[in-house]
Amino acid sequence: MNTILILGAGKSSTFLIDYLADSCGPKGRTLILADLDLDAAQDKLQDRSGTRASQLDTQDEQKRRTLISEADVVISMLPAFMHPLIAADCLELGKHFFSASYESGAMREMRAEIDRKGLFFLNECGLDPGIDHMSAMKIIDEAKAKGEEIVSFKSYCGGLLAPESEDNPWKYKFTWNPRNVVLAGQATSRYIENGELKFVPYHQLFKRTETIRFRGLGDFDGYPNRDSLSYRQVYGLEDIPTMLRGTLRRGGFCKAWDVFVQLGMTDDSFQLEMPQGTTLRQFLNAFLPYHPELSVEEKLAELIPDLDFPAFEKIQWLGFFENRKLPKTKGSPAQLLQAILEIDWELQPEDRDMIVMQHLFEIKTSEGIKKISSSLVSFGQDSVHTAMAMTVGLPLAIAVDLFLDGKIQLTGLHIPVIPALYEPILEELGKKGIGFEERIH
Amino acid sequence: MNTILILGAGKSSTFLIDYLADSCGPKGRTLILADLDLDAAQDKLQDRSGTRASQLDTQDEQKRRTLISEADVVISMLPAFMHPLIAADCLELGKHFFSASYESGAMREMRAEIDRKGLFFLNECGLDPGIDHMSAMKIIDEAKAKGEEIVSFKSYCGGLLAPESEDNPWKYKFTWNPRNVVLAGQATSRYIENGELKFVPYHQLFKRTETIRFRGLGDFDGYPNRDSLSYRQVYGLEDIPTMLRGTLRRGGFCKAWDVFVQLGMTDDSFQLEMPQGTTLRQFLNAFLPYHPELSVEEKLAELIPDLDFPAFEKIQWLGFFENRKLPKTKGSPAQLLQAILEIDWELQPEDRDMIVMQHLFEIKTSEGIKKISSSLVSFGQDSVHTAMAMTVGLPLAIAVDLFLDGKIQLTGLHIPVIPALYEPILEELGKKGIGFEERIH
Repeated sequence: MNTILILGAGKSSTFLIDYLADSCGPKGRTLILADLDLDAAQDKLQDRSGTRASQLDTQDEQKRRTLISEADVVISMLPAFMHPLIAADCLELGKHFFSASYESGAMREMRAEIDRKGLFFLNECGLDPGIDHMSAMKIIDEAKAKGEEIVSFKSYCGGLLAPESEDNPWKYKFTWNPRNVVLAGQATSRYIENGELKFVPYHQLFKRTETIRFRGLGDFDGYPNRDSLSYRQVYGLEDIPTMLRGTLRRGGFCKAWDVFVQLGMTDDSFQLEMPQGTTLRQFLNAFLPYHPELSVEEKLAELIPDLDFPAFEKIQWLGFFENRKLPKTKGSPAQLLQAILEIDWELQPEDRDMIVMQHLFEIKTSEGIKKISSSLVSFGQDSVHTAMAMTVGLPLAIAVDLFLDGKIQLTGLHIPVIPALYEPILEELGKKGIGFEERIH
Repeated sequence: MNTILILGAGKSSTFLIDYLADSCGPKGRTLILADLDLDAAQDKLQDRSGTRASQLDTQDEQKRRTLISEADVVISMLPAFMHPLIAADCLELGKHFFSASYESGAMREMRAEIDRKGLFFLNECGLDPGIDHMSAMKIIDEAKAKGEEIVSFKSYCGGLLAPESEDNPWKYKFTWNPRNVVLAGQATSRYIENGELKFVPYHQLFKRTETIRFRGLGDFDGYPNRDSLSYRQVYGLEDIPTMLRGTLRRGGFCKAWDVFVQLGMTDDSFQLEMPQGTTLRQFLNAFLPYHPELSVEEKLAELIPDLDFPAFEKIQWLGFFENRKLPKTKGSPAQLLQAILEIDWELQPEDRDMIVMQHLFEIKTSEGIKKISSSLVSFGQDSVHTAMAMTVGLPLAIAVDLFLDGKIQLTGLHIPVIPALYEPILEELGKKGIGFEERIH
């Protein structure tokens, strides 16, 4: 068992490819890297021994299945909706499957068949989901082993900028899919706090922030993220009184972003068409009540009573009070906003990104409540070798490497919440400099 | 041509059935009333000459088509999603079709075939849509005939309570589908004001109200309703600078309803399950931020800074600050809220409802801007003979009656925006006491 197939040679695959391509020579493995863009795939492999690139349109079922047939393990770095299709091919052709994406319902329906065929399918083995599960479960399992009770668990993660690249008032640029950033949080967030179920609608989300601190990096805004309640079962914490998972932005980002949310400018539910030549100022005005005399600035201040200067400055920096033209005039409000932001929040070649993750535990011990914070900070090298690509790709690469080395000996459908997975993977991540700093308060 | 088939004998069909059943004897017509509930249908017909009831499960295609085959004109009072199915049957079997619902895309696809077969299909011939179109187009066509230019048209409609039945602080009870009332406004509202396109997201909608006055009835809140922009074309007002269609509630209703919107309690996008025995107070608390000391009332006041006593009193009257148990604990927040309101906002047998509609025109004439307001107020008799059923059912009944009498001689797919339709229908409505009071300001 020594042939690896990676589907997708995009930006987030860089570290994954390097780690596994480097292993081919020493470990006598074969790596096939398949992408629609053959040049890009060849570029990433750099003729390393045992590796080859292959041109693949994933819709070409025959070619796809031929490639999968050649492999022992298949890693899908394709868009999430493709995973069930690839996983179904793997199931039929008897191949092991790896992804960094959420384990879907479609994947769970394959569970019995995966078991029956003795295959190993691993999902959620990237950053978030991935490193979050592994680092949290290590602390949870340790506490449980000591007979301690976890009474509160909050976990936050963010893909942001290294401080020296925070050169705009938002302290933000796109290091990830812009559309996902613009639409972030549109599902009602659910969590539990001190035994009280809490539901946060989208238009309250960016007001419902908590300040999260990282040593030497300062303050971040954390807002609750989707359905934290379902993670009680995933983590074996069914009766925990407080459980919240959230997303991090730089301090002040959420208050300014909330202006767009309040205006309705992140709305993706309908299509509009602004006249050609519409300015950002006019676009903003379309979300403000009509007034015969008040200026756009005055109407905005009236609509958002708690608008402060730091938030105003961020909106202003994007050009919303000027006569700059809309880069896109037809689409949903969210699509028009995204087109504006893609210009102003573009990651520059020399920019370095930053991944921050923090777990906050409150654990009942025989000596009272122990508070643990466990923090990960990871910096990118440049706009290609990002911390995002590293922290998403390395856990998956390591999992595949350990599996092929026989150091992970599991079958069935898994996410990395069991010691047999998280212990060896976290150990290797540590060697690569991806580790958590734990503090007991 | 003298056989009428009415599909659906529900509450909103009462006046429609009476009008057409009464016409059977004098005009030698046959009326078939089909409903799942045969007793209800028989009850409504009261053995009037020429009428008969028929039991019909609309999913029973064979029986449905047999009934349609017997008729010359078919009136669908079924839920809106059924109309295209019934219309397709009518098209195939060569029958004329009438409904009070919106003309759907599916219906428009049938247009060429309707024309080819020389059939008459009429939709949007109820209250809103229906009377609104007819009464507005009369004023619009008159102005155009005089060479005047309509520069502003706002149109509001509401299904409310007669003043003597306004015996709760909301001055509201359900006179129409409760689910539609709870979810009202969840599509982004779009209109144009003084040439400026305006988009209003749901969470701003109930703040963006205009006060609308009716002589002798006092103040109402009007909020913009869905896509007013598309009506520019329907009414032949493509270049109008101001065009808005809206919904009316009693003054003060919107500010209190907005509290539920802000909390996220009208959210229908996810399912929750509250523990058995959860109180309304605890349900409200689930939408408030956690605080170790503040009361539910204090947290609510903090979340909704402009909460005033009239709004607070309305929420309080529903029992949200008490330990009353939730009538339903599993479903979307909107479904749980609806279950509460269905108890407190239930129309009592002696209650009378009220329909209010007002058009506000600004018309450029040779003498300057002329302002016209045209208002309709209609009262129900009791909780069965509602103004809602009367104003929805009579326009449709009259249209069918006129068509069978040969006084409407049209073929093709229509809504009542042309004089050949609105003139005779408005005239008959006037004889039934449904008329507009026009004032020039």
